[in-house]
Amino acid sequence: MNKGQKDIDSWFKEVSFSYWSPHEMLARVTEEVGELARLVNHEYGPKVKKSTEREQEFSDEIGDIIFALACFANTHNIDLDKALADSLEKSKNRDKDRF
Amino acid sequence: MNKGQKDIDSWFKEVSFSYWSPHEMLARVTEEVGELARLVNHEYGPKVKKSTEREQEFSDEIGDIIFALACFANTHNIDLDKALADSLEKSKNRDKDRF
Amino acid sequence: MNKGQKDIDSWFKEVSFSYWSPHEMLARVTEEVGELARLVNHEYGPKVKKSTEREQEFSDEIGDIIFALACFANTHNIDLDKALADSLEKSKNRDKDRF
Amino acid sequence: MNKGQKDIDSWFKEVSFSYWSPHEMLARVTEEVGELARLVNHEYGPKVKKSTEREQEFSDEIGDIIFALACFANTHNIDLDKALADSLEKSKNRDKDRF
Repeated sequence: MNKGQKDIDSWFKEVSFSYWSPHEMLARVTEEVGELARLVNHEYGPKVKKSTEREQEFSDEIGDIIFALACFANTHNIDLDKALADSLEKSKNRDKDRF
Repeated sequence: MNKGQKDIDSWFKEVSFSYWSPHEMLARVTEEVGELARLVNHEYGPKVKKSTEREQEFSDEIGDIIFALACFANTHNIDLDKALADSLEKSKNRDKDRF
Repeated sequence: MNKGQKDIDSWFKEVSFSYWSPHEMLARVTEEVGELARLVNHEYGPKVKKSTEREQEFSDEIGDIIFALACFANTHNIDLDKALADSLEKSKNRDKDRF
Repeated sequence: MNKGQKDIDSWFKEVSFSYWSPHEMLARVTEEVGELARLVNHEYGPKVKKSTEREQEFSDEIGDIIFALACFANTHNIDLDKALADSLEKSKNRDKDRF
């Protein structure tokens, strides 16, 4: 399993955190994607003043989304690295059919 | 997830795909989170008939979200594994303040 | 209360539907916003072939989102018309502060 | 919600606001749904301390989502009340097929 996932699981055990319910974890994913959306509109949208630390801010928001997804994965026996590799494989096969 | 990011980038170069704009990639993330939401309601919500391949289906949806996030990361110099580790670190520090 | 909200409530009573839980209704909102996102990327994004019925398709997706929000509203004593008017009022006041 | 849409449009004209692009308006919808998700998790999820003004807070979040949808509707010749009525009609017809 992905190292980051394992580290989350170890920490949750250490501090006796329980994972949330699937719907609660999904709501957290939705909340974090909302923060990414806010940042995209701020950095690439109608707002004038842009951040000087754009890449770090995007990294923070994306990290928080993946954290929420990792909690979901940890409670469903999912390996994030494998899930990502499978998604790429699926895209490649879909693309192959076009030619 | 670092390897997965690189594999996506290599494939995009191989087949001459351009990355989408930030807003387009965000919309894709939103679409894929919507599919995860549909699955959560189906498997844990009011629907009666559940899937026999629940874990595989969740893995597919989560993989597609991370694929979209990886495209965003590849165009913003972000390392997904580092972003996840940073998010965990932030949570640990926040938690520490409570005690 | 808004007429559309009332019609939903009447129909739910007629066919003995129960409203879902807050988390389930939220997941439905997320799912429907995902479908709007798919359509935005299709009509205004990298896809080449556009729909000949763009406005009707957007109306359908937006209607489904508001339906899900109306269910939420019906279980929380919220009037959609008033909520919208309040949001506009808030924006006007925020704007006023800028001058 | 028809009146609310028109009031937004009148105000935008009065203060010379331009509507955002479809992708920007979608990102705003996503951001506002994220805030609703945060509130759902706070009021019905793992957090202990609940608000004393739950209904007002939900009304605020839902109003902001519909405001963003109204901007989308105003630029696509969509009537929110009709969109909601159509969505209900579709649900009724789908339900009819089950019997």
